[in-house]
Amino acid sequence: MAIKRRKVSVIGAGFTGATTALMTAQKELGDVVLVDIPDMEDPTKGKALDMLEATPVEGADVNVTGTSNYEDTADSDVVVITAGIARKPGMSRDDLVNTNAKIMKSVTNEIVKHSPDCYIIVLTNPADAMTYTVYKESGFPKNRVIGQSGVLDTARFRTFVAQELGFSVEDIQGFVLGGHGDDMVPLIRYSNAGGVPLTKLISQDRIDSIVERTRKGGGEIVGLLGNGSAYYAPAASLTQMVEAILKDKKRVLPTIAYLEGEYGYEDLYVGVPTVLGGDGIEKIIELDLTDEEKAEFAKSVKSVRSVMEALPKE
Amino acid sequence: MAIKRRKVSVIGAGFTGATTALMTAQKELGDVVLVDIPDMEDPTKGKALDMLEATPVEGADVNVTGTSNYEDTADSDVVVITAGIARKPGMSRDDLVNTNAKIMKSVTNEIVKHSPDCYIIVLTNPADAMTYTVYKESGFPKNRVIGQSGVLDTARFRTFVAQELGFSVEDIQGFVLGGHGDDMVPLIRYSNAGGVPLTKLISQDRIDSIVERTRKGGGEIVGLLGNGSAYYAPAASLTQMVEAILKDKKRVLPTIAYLEGEYGYEDLYVGVPTVLGGDGIEKIIELDLTDEEKAEFAKSVKSVRSVMEALPKE
Amino acid sequence: MAIKRRKVSVIGAGFTGATTALMTAQKELGDVVLVDIPDMEDPTKGKALDMLEATPVEGADVNVTGTSNYEDTADSDVVVITAGIARKPGMSRDDLVNTNAKIMKSVTNEIVKHSPDCYIIVLTNPADAMTYTVYKESGFPKNRVIGQSGVLDTARFRTFVAQELGFSVEDIQGFVLGGHGDDMVPLIRYSNAGGVPLTKLISQDRIDSIVERTRKGGGEIVGLLGNGSAYYAPAASLTQMVEAILKDKKRVLPTIAYLEGEYGYEDLYVGVPTVLGGDGIEKIIELDLTDEEKAEFAKSVKSVRSVMEALPKE
Amino acid sequence: MAIKRRKVSVIGAGFTGATTALMTAQKELGDVVLVDIPDMEDPTKGKALDMLEATPVEGADVNVTGTSNYEDTADSDVVVITAGIARKPGMSRDDLVNTNAKIMKSVTNEIVKHSPDCYIIVLTNPADAMTYTVYKESGFPKNRVIGQSGVLDTARFRTFVAQELGFSVEDIQGFVLGGHGDDMVPLIRYSNAGGVPLTKLISQDRIDSIVERTRKGGGEIVGLLGNGSAYYAPAASLTQMVEAILKDKKRVLPTIAYLEGEYGYEDLYVGVPTVLGGDGIEKIIELDLTDEEKAEFAKSVKSVRSVMEALPKE
Repeated sequence: MAIKRRKVSVIGAGFTGATTALMTAQKELGDVVLVDIPDMEDPTKGKALDMLEATPVEGADVNVTGTSNYEDTADSDVVVITAGIARKPGMSRDDLVNTNAKIMKSVTNEIVKHSPDCYIIVLTNPADAMTYTVYKESGFPKNRVIGQSGVLDTARFRTFVAQELGFSVEDIQGFVLGGHGDDMVPLIRYSNAGGVPLTKLISQDRIDSIVERTRKGGGEIVGLLGNGSAYYAPAASLTQMVEAILKDKKRVLPTIAYLEGEYGYEDLYVGVPTVLGGDGIEKIIELDLTDEEKAEFAKSVKSVRSVMEALPKE
Repeated sequence: MAIKRRKVSVIGAGFTGATTALMTAQKELGDVVLVDIPDMEDPTKGKALDMLEATPVEGADVNVTGTSNYEDTADSDVVVITAGIARKPGMSRDDLVNTNAKIMKSVTNEIVKHSPDCYIIVLTNPADAMTYTVYKESGFPKNRVIGQSGVLDTARFRTFVAQELGFSVEDIQGFVLGGHGDDMVPLIRYSNAGGVPLTKLISQDRIDSIVERTRKGGGEIVGLLGNGSAYYAPAASLTQMVEAILKDKKRVLPTIAYLEGEYGYEDLYVGVPTVLGGDGIEKIIELDLTDEEKAEFAKSVKSVRSVMEALPKE
Repeated sequence: MAIKRRKVSVIGAGFTGATTALMTAQKELGDVVLVDIPDMEDPTKGKALDMLEATPVEGADVNVTGTSNYEDTADSDVVVITAGIARKPGMSRDDLVNTNAKIMKSVTNEIVKHSPDCYIIVLTNPADAMTYTVYKESGFPKNRVIGQSGVLDTARFRTFVAQELGFSVEDIQGFVLGGHGDDMVPLIRYSNAGGVPLTKLISQDRIDSIVERTRKGGGEIVGLLGNGSAYYAPAASLTQMVEAILKDKKRVLPTIAYLEGEYGYEDLYVGVPTVLGGDGIEKIIELDLTDEEKAEFAKSVKSVRSVMEALPKE
Repeated sequence: MAIKRRKVSVIGAGFTGATTALMTAQKELGDVVLVDIPDMEDPTKGKALDMLEATPVEGADVNVTGTSNYEDTADSDVVVITAGIARKPGMSRDDLVNTNAKIMKSVTNEIVKHSPDCYIIVLTNPADAMTYTVYKESGFPKNRVIGQSGVLDTARFRTFVAQELGFSVEDIQGFVLGGHGDDMVPLIRYSNAGGVPLTKLISQDRIDSIVERTRKGGGEIVGLLGNGSAYYAPAASLTQMVEAILKDKKRVLPTIAYLEGEYGYEDLYVGVPTVLGGDGIEKIIELDLTDEEKAEFAKSVKSVRSVMEALPKE
């Protein structure tokens, strides 16, 4: 049987989804299908065609197509979900959760129907609860449903540390647990530059300030843009996760994973260090936490659970 | 003296400018400065910061900054101009030319002041006349002012041919002369797939239809998007030109170059095959044209000259 | 089912085989198994381990192993055969052909036994006859047995043309038919620089001299090295073919393909332009040849047939 | 002034030198000059030409030349020294040191004469003493003379840890101080997988065995090859250091650096964590060591000093 290109579908053709499609194509990871709702079919096709027209310059032999028809996603190896609404002024958190949960369910049904063997990566906010929703709706084993938040958080953290020290971004390692943003639990003692613990290189004051900036990293971009939110670093993060799976790299990355007793919790999706490879989340790495870290993680889990309360019951 | 990173400034932080900055950073070609007007300073900083936060994931050690202050562009090796307005419904062509020419002059003065040794690549439409304007205003030698149109046109042509034949985009070669879009003079006899002339592989009918689609390639994306125009393939094209200069690759690329007798024309910028390397346009390649090709090229030149008529006189 | 890395086995751990394994690993195309005879097992393991120890620096997540046991090659996607002896002073051509044909048969049986669905690329000299031998012995369909010679010949040709013109190697396209070396039929009218026919750019004298240098390209390296023959460019050529198949790139590359009537010949393997993708040789491109080209190609075919005469009959 | 390609000269065209030249060319870091003694001029030219003939396939626009004339290295940005003899059976260590020190002096004089502003990277064994010799002979500031040993040691360490854990090589970080091989001081508490300390992931027994294997890593390859020593991973390590300098990456890498009081030592070159960027060794990172680590490092320093005793006095 002929060797086939891998296939990646990206659901949601907004800036993050489109940029994820672009980066996946640039890296020649596989053919890319960009999907949005029927009303947005033409713009989605337009973005995909524009990307495709960049492939001769990039030297990337992949097809990029835009569609509103899930049949075109058939037999995807990886599906990335970026669909969903952003929280608007005046919208309650429960309304956001409800709306996006409905979108997740509808999208998941289509994905499962056309790509029953795929791996699903979820970006949509609030990511912990949305990944949980996709997991439940899909009926997939837990390793095949993965949420994104920690790769982006650590990317921001690494950026700020690299700037502080004037070191290569390649040599900064960050480490987070728990939820995104305010709920993030940074594990500074596991963060380092070229192996050297950050605490040997940066004053506690400056570390605190970098952690705080990381927590508010999404808001900092929103504040600057004035209109809209970050999409370059989120898309790069998603693409790294796609690559880890498609190339079976077994990367040690913080992802939103389903806990069944790890860290003392059950039946929830929350950010933990994992090994991401050809079978999705191949392993959850359990760390000994200090009492303080445990308390912070517990707070983060509580926050996730409180969002999950808002999920529509069936 | 320490080895310094190359430096690239991109003027205009719209979609094409921002995506060019992203791709330049991804390829680790040098530090990137994204510039827009004071009113857009915060969004420009936001886009640049978002890109910078992607560098740890990309493994790219470059700085990316947003600014409205041209001092930050000092000592750039290459400056890419994407600034300018798009033609709006009801706007006359002369109004467009006038407005963008004024923007070119103002931008060029700032560039020249802060980076007197740089190479300038111009994207702004109408690109032939705008490149001419930048050339005159800069006082730079002709090899250091270069316009983009042919790399994008051939990228689109190559995409359509690759799809028609089911061949790798890497092996399709396109060849155009003259202006962008409708004024494009495709030289099919110089276009090939893996060295095989297209006419041996595709029927004349289909070639004609591919040429026509290429001519209307920008419009096809505009039509699909509904709002806005192409930016992925344009940015990839600009980035390829930046790379050709920074790495002194001496690529054979169609660019908008200043003619001083080549092809029988003088004192205008128009699309011709060139060698693009560490000294900008290092060579213009002159081809024997058939009578028909000469006529088409003359028509294209006439169209360029007519746009130049509309340039503001001082 | 989990996504698995691709797998490439390289038979023969001499310089070309080892360098092909290295380049395949560097490009992260898949896990690599380097195979040699039991007597060479330890050095083969040593080379493989040395390459593996380079992967952290390269950032390539692939396994590289050395072995003399074909069981380790099981379920390879692509197998590259570089095994065989080089012609030694005093050795008749028939002895060379006989010895290498025996090696091909033995190697092929092992490959087929352990990887019944793989694609085989043959480098061993004389490549046309050896590819034929592997084809017959394997019982594989013709598209899954492919010989290398033209990618290397054109790489040399492109190098010399790029040097002559001072243009980027990326923009030079060469085109050959027929056998390797002296039997090579260069099709200059299909060779170009950035689409421009070489004859417009280089004098006929210099072209002739470049063609002659290309024909003797292997000998030039042998002469300089004093001991041994080229392996960097041959390995790069093989790796490009491996990549074309594994990524289903559908590259237009000159390969040694099985003819069944194309160009008027039957039942032989000889160099022709092909499309190389996920199903091996997906297409043979047939060109109209001039009478002179036909005569040269006929001579090349005759030379191949005369080598085939020397193949051991069963 | 036109933008020029970077230039890298590699002294010594043996396997490691040649492979370093290849990898530097593959990454398109700059033009490469491979240098060996007049007696080896032809083979050196042969290797360089073979590499050059691979560039069209790699898409790398760099020149690669072989020579025995140091004038060809003029104005190099970085010079890598791999020249020197290997210790043969029966040869005393002092003889090895003496012979290679003479080679270093002769080579250094040529380098300094033709590239007075370059950065020099030394691989030749014993690397600490040889880097010291080059430093003294060159009269260069200390930041511009850098020895290699730790990048290779940690590459091996990372490989073994990645295999032990089944994790991506990208996520394993090793950390060593002191001399190469037996004198290596592994700092396990600074080594980690994705930020997680190795001691949380691997039993002390297995860590000890991995450290031991790393110490003997060079010998393991020598033993397997039977004839000759490792060159793939050493060349990859050198190329990474070249890249860190040419791209001003400011990588945190263990290199052999000149101490002037750091770690309590003076006037010697020994392996320590450094920041490697556009100005060579831009910083030495000083760590608090435990008493045990201090003792091990002292032993390593003593060993380096004892080799330095054997250096020829002028």
